[in-house]
Amino acid sequence: MISYEEFAKVEIRAGKVLSAEKIPDTDKLLKLSVDFAETTEVVDEAGVKTVTPKVRQIVSGISTYFPDPAVLVGKTCMFVTNLEPRSIRGFESNGMLFAVSTPEGSFSLLEPNATIPPGTKAK
Amino acid sequence: MISYEEFAKVEIRAGKVLSAEKIPDTDKLLKLSVDFAETTEVVDEAGVKTVTPKVRQIVSGISTYFPDPAVLVGKTCMFVTNLEPRSIRGFESNGMLFAVSTPEGSFSLLEPNATIPPGTKAK
Repeated sequence: MISYEEFAKVEIRAGKVLSAEKIPDTDKLLKLSVDFAETTEVVDEAGVKTVTPKVRQIVSGISTYFPDPAVLVGKTCMFVTNLEPRSIRGFESNGMLFAVSTPEGSFSLLEPNATIPPGTKAK
Repeated sequence: MISYEEFAKVEIRAGKVLSAEKIPDTDKLLKLSVDFAETTEVVDEAGVKTVTPKVRQIVSGISTYFPDPAVLVGKTCMFVTNLEPRSIRGFESNGMLFAVSTPEGSFSLLEPNATIPPGTKAK
């Protein structure tokens, strides 16, 4: 059992997959770029602020479920977005796909309906 | 930021909604009974074990999104299943619907595909 506070620390957000490709020489790894409607703000010496979209790279061990990774492009699914970044086979991963699988080999993404924009937090 | 261990403490499982009804005299509350493929085992004095299905009651503040709660019956969606039980308006709730909503009033369940049986943990 956990407390509500422990649960609330976990941030699981909707992200839109912009690209997906198999990482060569791995059995299961896909490299995804995912949009969470995040931006990076840079203020230059003149005080001019530039806001640019920030896309996250996320590595996920799901390539056995997606022989053609292109089918993932355009889908919105759920990701844990506040884990420490980590390096997987040399590729930085800034999040973790949050999905459902069984020991028997079934797998499902968790896709919100079309009314949910990228970046929305589940709760 | 949280650690993977903090994330892993949270148990979010697929549950199949068996019944759904509005709690009278509340604005938003639905009372759900949800199947997570859990059982209760009782061993009597003779040592005979009886295994009975255990269904959880879960209270959720989503009735504005489901004017007809019956549409929820039969759906499999996601629930946080290891929160301490709590009483909401006098109704015990043994879990929390895990869904996505926006401040603008959009809402989405997170429904795994049909290959995922009740009780499956998301990760």
